Amino acid sequence: MTIRYRPVAVAGAARAGILQTAHGSVETPTFMPVGTTATVKAMTADAVRETGAAIVLGNTYHLMLRPGADRVAALGGLHRFMDWPGTILTDSGGFQVMSLAKLRKMDADGVMFQSHLDGSTHRLTPARSIEIQHKLDATISMVLDECTPFPATEEQARLSMEMSSRWAARSREAFLDRPGYGLFGIVQGGVFPGLRAASAGALTDIGFDGYAIGGLAVGEGQAAMFGVLDATIPLLPTDRARYLMGVGTPDDIVGAVQRGVDMFDCVIPTRAGRTARAYTAEGVFNLRNARFADDAAPLDPCCRCLACNRHSRGYLHHLFRAGEMLGPMLLTWHNLTYYQDLMRGLRAAIIADRLDVHAAALRADWMGREPSGELT
Amino acid sequence: MTIRYRPVAVAGAARAGILQTAHGSVETPTFMPVGTTATVKAMTADAVRETGAAIVLGNTYHLMLRPGADRVAALGGLHRFMDWPGTILTDSGGFQVMSLAKLRKMDADGVMFQSHLDGSTHRLTPARSIEIQHKLDATISMVLDECTPFPATEEQARLSMEMSSRWAARSREAFLDRPGYGLFGIVQGGVFPGLRAASAGALTDIGFDGYAIGGLAVGEGQAAMFGVLDATIPLLPTDRARYLMGVGTPDDIVGAVQRGVDMFDCVIPTRAGRTARAYTAEGVFNLRNARFADDAAPLDPCCRCLACNRHSRGYLHHLFRAGEMLGPMLLTWHNLTYYQDLMRGLRAAIIADRLDVHAAALRADWMGREPSGELT
Repeated sequence: MTIRYRPVAVAGAARAGILQTAHGSVETPTFMPVGTTATVKAMTADAVRETGAAIVLGNTYHLMLRPGADRVAALGGLHRFMDWPGTILTDSGGFQVMSLAKLRKMDADGVMFQSHLDGSTHRLTPARSIEIQHKLDATISMVLDECTPFPATEEQARLSMEMSSRWAARSREAFLDRPGYGLFGIVQGGVFPGLRAASAGALTDIGFDGYAIGGLAVGEGQAAMFGVLDATIPLLPTDRARYLMGVGTPDDIVGAVQRGVDMFDCVIPTRAGRTARAYTAEGVFNLRNARFADDAAPLDPCCRCLACNRHSRGYLHHLFRAGEMLGPMLLTWHNLTYYQDLMRGLRAAIIADRLDVHAAALRADWMGREPSGELT
Repeated sequence: MTIRYRPVAVAGAARAGILQTAHGSVETPTFMPVGTTATVKAMTADAVRETGAAIVLGNTYHLMLRPGADRVAALGGLHRFMDWPGTILTDSGGFQVMSLAKLRKMDADGVMFQSHLDGSTHRLTPARSIEIQHKLDATISMVLDECTPFPATEEQARLSMEMSSRWAARSREAFLDRPGYGLFGIVQGGVFPGLRAASAGALTDIGFDGYAIGGLAVGEGQAAMFGVLDATIPLLPTDRARYLMGVGTPDDIVGAVQRGVDMFDCVIPTRAGRTARAYTAEGVFNLRNARFADDAAPLDPCCRCLACNRHSRGYLHHLFRAGEMLGPMLLTWHNLTYYQDLMRGLRAAIIADRLDVHAAALRADWMGREPSGELT
């Protein structure tokens, strides 16, 4: 495991850093657009690059079922397949097995499940997940874990976390070291600080290139999530990247960066882009709203994206009303640009040692300026 | 009316020329991508430009209903609305009224119809169509006509053509001359050479910036269509552009260029792009076909488009199988690039005075190399 993370500045618990991989360097904190099936939905790879993204995420569950890991490997690996020579992180498949697959059956060694696509039966074990991610040519692989359901009793959460710890060790054994490639562990333990600490201890004993915090953003609420971060992050090594999985809204991200998280992924900006929800400096609004029909202003006057530089809100409104594909294309582009610029701003604020002021100003703008804005 | 057309080379009946408008110059023969609702489906305006398109088409029927001509005008006109500073041609709305609207009722002065979107009642007359196209800021407007149904008796076709001729005169009266803007007449008359000649005569007597040939590609077949072109085009002035509406396949276009047509529009490349049908130098094939799943070759090795330069057939196959928006995006990009390169090749062959050899070679490639290719 040879992925390097180097902090370049700290501001309280927050840090700005550089993640160096076989496929380039990534400035952190960073947001990873989700490219579930080897495509960031509604975006060309060139467009994703233009937003400023340096790393994208692929989903092992989806890719192992279609087109299949061997096929991706034969077609040159995920980087070449999807035209993304940059860093790619893949998840382990475990989360989607629990949320998408049919008739899943867990045991101590892994999980049997039926594909949601065609009902075919598959098995995922720590070693198998690592093998698939290797075939996909993921720069960063994730250990197979169980995302502890929420709510769970402390005993349920403990058993789940302990199994994830055993699977983490097996994942580590199965991972083939290659220069610039790496494997991240995933801290579990639900909302219980003691379990999170035990998980962090078990994982750091094994030793990984980075540490994810999993099992959050599953209904526990922002306060509980931040509580877990406060209890967990101080236990993680400072010379490894920290990744908060599946998070989140801009407000979630700002709070997590303030608590020391370096990496994020979430479907929010892309999914919102397909449902007319725009993320802007002034909050979130829905472009289908009739008040935008005659609006000649750009979506976000401060934004550098294609949608904001070339089109009016009235045009974007029209595209969504008419059901035109260009609506999701342009708004996904905008939302991802907004997220990337948010991360760049947070990084700059950390380096300038003014993160808290910057975060307060962001929150004031989100809440204050957009009368009908709904912050989600 | 001040749109200038200048032939720069002729090869038999075919010609290469330059169309000079308020929004740029267009090298002919040219293919106009269809941007029905102020967007070429699945394409950003930048992507449309990258294919080489110099002129796009908008549909008056769709735009008058949604978002509405006044709204487009208030938002800066169609060029600004859709980020297309280049030349835009709009149709008159007549064709879509007949094919899409509900409960239409023709009379001598125009047509009443109900919107297919919300059932609201609208009226289109020659003057009203021209007014709408003016509000849209169309560089080239089309006269309101009746696309004569097929099949029709000669008497039906004559009555329809005569009404279209009267409407053409009214359209001309309603059109407001502006430098670099123009109005095209539309020759009708079904498959009857005498009626086509009468229509061409009536229109040239009025005088237009260009002459379209309408009422074709409605089921009459390629031979009948070419017969109409052979009978009509010699009757049109050589110093005006000629536009064959709604045509067609690459093979249709080559034959029509050989007969002297300068301008084309058709939904084929864009619609095919959304349904996995690829137009290539080796014919047409469907990317959903399982034989492409493991194909590492580019879609068309000679093509300069994004899809062919960055991705494999296996990737494009995967995108369509997975229902990903990027499939239609990339394949529309490819198909439009193929059409634009086809037009550039035809123009170059005319200038080099080797059009017939070039056309024969194109046809041989389409038919010969792709065993399961279906040429449509």
